[in-house]
Amino acid sequence: MSFSDIRFFPRVTIEQVEEGNELAPKFDEHGLIPCVTTASHNGEVLMLGYMNAEALKKTILTGEAHYWSRSRKVIWHKGATSGLTQKVVSLRIDDDQDAIWLSVNVIGDASCHVGYRSCFYRSVPTGEGPDVRVLNYEEKEKTFDPKAVYGDAPNPTIL
Amino acid sequence: MSFSDIRFFPRVTIEQVEEGNELAPKFDEHGLIPCVTTASHNGEVLMLGYMNAEALKKTILTGEAHYWSRSRKVIWHKGATSGLTQKVVSLRIDDDQDAIWLSVNVIGDASCHVGYRSCFYRSVPTGEGPDVRVLNYEEKEKTFDPKAVYGDAPNPTIL
Repeated sequence: MSFSDIRFFPRVTIEQVEEGNELAPKFDEHGLIPCVTTASHNGEVLMLGYMNAEALKKTILTGEAHYWSRSRKVIWHKGATSGLTQKVVSLRIDDDQDAIWLSVNVIGDASCHVGYRSCFYRSVPTGEGPDVRVLNYEEKEKTFDPKAVYGDAPNPTIL
Repeated sequence: MSFSDIRFFPRVTIEQVEEGNELAPKFDEHGLIPCVTTASHNGEVLMLGYMNAEALKKTILTGEAHYWSRSRKVIWHKGATSGLTQKVVSLRIDDDQDAIWLSVNVIGDASCHVGYRSCFYRSVPTGEGPDVRVLNYEEKEKTFDPKAVYGDAPNPTIL
């Protein structure tokens, strides 16, 4: 079968969306749904990505994470360039079906284009304290060298 | 101090945003940044919420999760109605600083307005299979009765 064979239900009632078993995802005004991706072995949040309908269908069909690249504006089979593919262990959808949670095994144990294991390698101190908070590095060193893996490909970060 | 004393840096360069220690969050065209919230004891993804600048600052200052309610259009101190507050264990920001990860302890062990522990109580089968996928319930019963907790408050789900 092809990814285009996979069908979603129209969103008709709140009860259907929240309490039913029909897959009726809500895409935003850009045609995207956010996706939280975590490491299956320890629950670490690796990244927050976005999927359009095609990326979600390809993820469902292939069991490998596909996203929509907002900077490159293409379907992004995660790991196609770096080899760091994400094998889906479970794919969940939330109550109002406007967010996806992928639990994955990462080939190569890194998901961040900066070279870290997780994109969330820095923390913000909470509680009373200075008005300017200094970010702490929670990963002490990079897992891979982005230059060696991506070469001169443009950085996807948008200011 | 007040939440309004907390200051963010302007976003100037990719290196500053990705490799520095300055907190320079990116809010989208609606003034929001998405926030993944996980349970600190097991890494389960509880919800995907959104924060505006005020909600993020209040979360940083108080150590309790605050979001922006897109349906009610107000700052939402999670648990103010239900008592199911979320105590921040760690607050992280991602590489390009356009997503937040909160790891929390949940008072009452439930975060979903439908009554489940996690908003992500249903999974989608992956791999080859039927074109219509039936959602599986990963939580077998609700943790609390939403009617008893929220009464006749409007359901926040938007179709």
